[in-house]
Amino acid sequence: MTTGVEELEAKARAAKVASHRLAYLSTDVKNKALHNISHDLLAKTDEILAANQVDYKEAEASGMSAAMLDRLMLDSSRLEAIAQDVLTVAALPDPVGEVFDMRTLPNGLQVGRKRVPLGVIGAIYESRPNVTIDISVLCLKSGNAVILRGGKEAIQSNSALAKVVQEAAIRAGVPEGAVQFIENTDRALVNHMLKMNDTIDLIIPRGGAGLIKSVTENATMPVVSGGIGVCHTYVDKSADVNKAVAIAYNAKVQRPTVCNALDTLLVHAEIAQLYLPLVAAEWAKAGVEMHCDEQALSILKPYSSLKLVQSVDEDWGKEFLALVAAVKVVDSLDEALEHIERYGSGHSEAIVTEEYGAAMRFLNEVDAACVYVNASTRFTDGGQFGLGAEVGISTQKLHARGPLGLKELTTYKWVIFGSGQVRA
Amino acid sequence: MTTGVEELEAKARAAKVASHRLAYLSTDVKNKALHNISHDLLAKTDEILAANQVDYKEAEASGMSAAMLDRLMLDSSRLEAIAQDVLTVAALPDPVGEVFDMRTLPNGLQVGRKRVPLGVIGAIYESRPNVTIDISVLCLKSGNAVILRGGKEAIQSNSALAKVVQEAAIRAGVPEGAVQFIENTDRALVNHMLKMNDTIDLIIPRGGAGLIKSVTENATMPVVSGGIGVCHTYVDKSADVNKAVAIAYNAKVQRPTVCNALDTLLVHAEIAQLYLPLVAAEWAKAGVEMHCDEQALSILKPYSSLKLVQSVDEDWGKEFLALVAAVKVVDSLDEALEHIERYGSGHSEAIVTEEYGAAMRFLNEVDAACVYVNASTRFTDGGQFGLGAEVGISTQKLHARGPLGLKELTTYKWVIFGSGQVRA
Repeated sequence: MTTGVEELEAKARAAKVASHRLAYLSTDVKNKALHNISHDLLAKTDEILAANQVDYKEAEASGMSAAMLDRLMLDSSRLEAIAQDVLTVAALPDPVGEVFDMRTLPNGLQVGRKRVPLGVIGAIYESRPNVTIDISVLCLKSGNAVILRGGKEAIQSNSALAKVVQEAAIRAGVPEGAVQFIENTDRALVNHMLKMNDTIDLIIPRGGAGLIKSVTENATMPVVSGGIGVCHTYVDKSADVNKAVAIAYNAKVQRPTVCNALDTLLVHAEIAQLYLPLVAAEWAKAGVEMHCDEQALSILKPYSSLKLVQSVDEDWGKEFLALVAAVKVVDSLDEALEHIERYGSGHSEAIVTEEYGAAMRFLNEVDAACVYVNASTRFTDGGQFGLGAEVGISTQKLHARGPLGLKELTTYKWVIFGSGQVRA
Repeated sequence: MTTGVEELEAKARAAKVASHRLAYLSTDVKNKALHNISHDLLAKTDEILAANQVDYKEAEASGMSAAMLDRLMLDSSRLEAIAQDVLTVAALPDPVGEVFDMRTLPNGLQVGRKRVPLGVIGAIYESRPNVTIDISVLCLKSGNAVILRGGKEAIQSNSALAKVVQEAAIRAGVPEGAVQFIENTDRALVNHMLKMNDTIDLIIPRGGAGLIKSVTENATMPVVSGGIGVCHTYVDKSADVNKAVAIAYNAKVQRPTVCNALDTLLVHAEIAQLYLPLVAAEWAKAGVEMHCDEQALSILKPYSSLKLVQSVDEDWGKEFLALVAAVKVVDSLDEALEHIERYGSGHSEAIVTEEYGAAMRFLNEVDAACVYVNASTRFTDGGQFGLGAEVGISTQKLHARGPLGLKELTTYKWVIFGSGQVRA
C-alpha cells in the first residue's frame, strides 16, 4: 500500500465530518474566519517567508526555470496582496442558505430548493503557493470542507500557509477538520485521492494542462476544470474597423499566456483587404507572429515588417498561449460559424459587427461558455463578470459554465414542509 | 469493428448538426411537433399495436415473466394515455431562452446568462416502449437532439414509435436528424456509444439497477441517473402518532416498488412503545414484513398477527422495492441523523415531529436530495413537485438534485453585449 493512504483517508473522513457542521455554519463565523486568516497572514509574515525561502532555494538549486521560480516566490508585498484578496472574498455575499422556487402545493405542502454546499472539495495544484489560501478561502466561504494537495516544490510554503488557515479558522469557530493539508507529495497518493468518490464530492485541479488532463481522466468524482481555451474573434464584413483592431489587439496582446486570449482571427473577405493590414501593424508593434492562410498571406505579404508564417493544419484549433495568432479569411458568417464549431473549445468566442442580424445569429448559434459581440474575449473572468472571486473557468456544460464563483461551489437540496400529507 | 458503429456515428453526427438549429427553434415549432406526435400516436394506433404484438409474441415465446410482459404491452388505452402525456409536456413552459443575471458593468458591457439546451442526449433504456415517446418529447421540448437506444425485446414497438416521432416532428419544422433511433440492439454498440463524448453531451439510462450501474461506470460523458433510493422515515419522540402512522403507511405501502418508498423506519425509544404496535397493525393489513432490531422486536413480539423477522446487518441501507421494511429504535435525534448519514443514499428522508427545533435540525443536517418534515417521501416526483414532466430523479450533487424536469435538461451560456470594450 502507498505510504500515507491511511493518513489521507483519515483526513478525508475528518473533512467529511466537518462538512456536515460547515453546511449550516453562520455567515458571521465564516467571515470571521476569513478576517482572521487575512490578519494572520500579515502577523506571521516572517514564518511564511522563511518557509518559502526553503522551497525557493531548493527549487533554485534543482534548476527550476526563472518563470517557475517567480511563481513560487513570496515576498511581503505579495503576501499583503493575498491577505487583501481574502478580505474581498469575506465581503462577498454568502451563497449558502438561499431558498428559491418555494411554492405551496394544492395539498398544502411547501416545497422549495435550498442552496447548500457541495460537501468536501479536493484541490490538487502546482507550484503557486497562493492557491493554498485562494482555494481554502473560497471553500470556507461557500461552506465546503477542503483537502489541499499542493506540489512538492512548494511544500514548505503550502504547509506554513495551511497552518495559518487552520488555526485562524478554528479560532473563529469553524469546526476542526474543515481544512485538511496533505504533507505527503507522493504521486501515487494523488491517484488514490482521485478514487475516493465516497468522501470527496468534487475535485478542482489547478495547474498546467498535464495535471488537468491526468486529473480529468482518472478522477471517479466530478472535476471542475477549464481545460483549454481556443478562442476565436470573427471580424464581420460590417465591422467597425477601429473597434475590430482594438478588440483583436487586446484579445491577443494584453495577456497572451491565459486561456481567454485570442488564438484565431477570422476575417470576412469583404473587409480583409482593409482590416488585415491595420491589425497586423498593431500586432507587429507587440511582436505578434501571424500564421496566415493563403488569402491572408497574399494580402499581408507586401508589408515587410510583419512576422508572417504560412499556416499549417495544426494551427486551427491550437491554443498558442503566446504572441502567436492564426489568421484566416472566410467568405461568410456561415463559414466563420462552421470554423468555430469545428475548432473551438467551447470557451470564449467573439464577433465584431455593426449588423444586428449577424450579432444575433452569432449569439444564438455559437455553442461556447461565453459568446461576445463587440468586446474582447479577455473579459471572461469571474472578477470581470461581477462574480467576485473565481475558482476557475469551466468549458463543460453540466453544473456550471464559464467563470465559476462561490455559487458554483454549491448545490441545492429540496426542503419540504408538511403537516401530515400523504400521497393519494 | 462492431457492426453498426459507422451507422451509429453517422446518426450521432446528424443529431449534433440538428442540435445547433434546435437550440434556437421557436417554442411554437416545438409545441407544434408535440401536438403532431400526440395526434399521430392515435392516428397510427393500428400500426403501433401491430408492431407491439410482434414484440409481445416473441417475448412470450421466449418465456418473459408476466410482469415484464405487462411492461412491454401496449393497447389503445395505454396509447391514449401516452398521447395525453405528450400534450401535458406541450403545455409546460419552454425552459430555453430565458436570460437571467443580466447586468451592466461599469464599462458598459452587458453580461448575462442565457438558458440553452445541453445539445445531444443519449437515452439507453429497457423494455417499456413508452420511454421512446417520453424521452423524445422531453428532449424536443427542451431543444435537445436525442439518440434513442431501446432494448431488443421492444425493438418493433420502439421502431414504430420512433418513426411516428420523427415524421411528426419534421412536419412541424423540427430539423431532420433531431431524433435518432438505433435499430441495432447489439450490446457492443452501447459500449461504443458510451465512449462518444465528443458528440453526446449527456446519457440518460432508464431501466433496472444493472443497466444504470453499467452505464454509470462506463460512460465517458456525464450521466444523469437516480441510482438507488434508500429512504428513511424517522418518528421523533414528539411526533403526532396519527400523522406518523399515516405517513409511514403511505411511504411503505402506496407503491412499494419505487425508489421513494420507505425502506427503514427509525423510531425514538420514548415513543416506540406507543407507536410501533399502531404502525405495525396498519402495515400488517397490507402484508408488510418487518425486519426489526432487538428493541423493536421486543415491543412487537406480543402481537401474533405480524410478519416479524429479526434484522440482520444487511437490512440497514437496503432498498427493498417490496412490502418489507427495516425497523430500528433509536435513543435520540442524533442517533437517527447518524444512521441516515451512514446508510442513506441521498434520495429522500423524512422526520415526523411536532417539535420545531427537531424539524429544523433535520432539515439542516440531513444531506439528501429531498428532506421532509411531516410528509410521506412518496412525494419525491417531478409531477408532484410542480415541475410537470420528469426525466428521472438524481441522487448526484452536481448539476441537478432530486426530480429532473425540463429545465434540468438545459445549461446556460454567458452572452455579452459590447460596444468595443477592451480589458484594461
